[in-house]
Amino acid sequence: MSDLANLKWDAQGLIPAIVQDASTRQVLMIAYMNADSLQQTLDMGETVFWSRSRGEIWHKGATSGNIQKVREIYVDCDEDSLLILVDPAGPACHTGEVSCFYRNLTEVTHA
Amino acid sequence: MSDLANLKWDAQGLIPAIVQDASTRQVLMIAYMNADSLQQTLDMGETVFWSRSRGEIWHKGATSGNIQKVREIYVDCDEDSLLILVDPAGPACHTGEVSCFYRNLTEVTHA
Repeated sequence: MSDLANLKWDAQGLIPAIVQDASTRQVLMIAYMNADSLQQTLDMGETVFWSRSRGEIWHKGATSGNIQKVREIYVDCDEDSLLILVDPAGPACHTGEVSCFYRNLTEVTHA
Repeated sequence: MSDLANLKWDAQGLIPAIVQDASTRQVLMIAYMNADSLQQTLDMGETVFWSRSRGEIWHKGATSGNIQKVREIYVDCDEDSLLILVDPAGPACHTGEVSCFYRNLTEVTHA
């Protein structure tokens, strides 16, 4: 049993999780986990997040089929962020893009 | 002049920024920017963050020399996170590790 209390959860009980493709090394998305969703991720071997907008557990790909199989989970030096290497079954983004980071900043801010 | 107000800043006026090595594709760190530090990043071409622990602008590498030259900045689909591709002059982590994500989760949680 993991002692997830060793992680530094924020005031909402969440920790940011960066998701990176284990093969291509492309950064796919960032989402948030609470202790329950991280435990489910460890148990299931697929990413499970806490949806801040919907206020519920979110098993990535449960409806779309685009699950992310977990290969490795890293913790940063101050133990308040995760980096999760995955094998994705499909696009990470709800737009259909491989990565949620598909636009350059200038496309959004019109620099 | 960029319209950084198009980004979705959180209640503290911050946005998380994932920093990735542009050449090796290694994820180096995650830090936070406010509008001022992002504007300084754009002006200077080097990463500038908001240090949440010290409550001040933090020009990465100003004291250590380990600056990060900015190659590209991407925004995610919901415009509340940044991905910054950099050429780092040295280790990202204050421990001397190349990346802040140098430990597997199990090393922290003793799974």
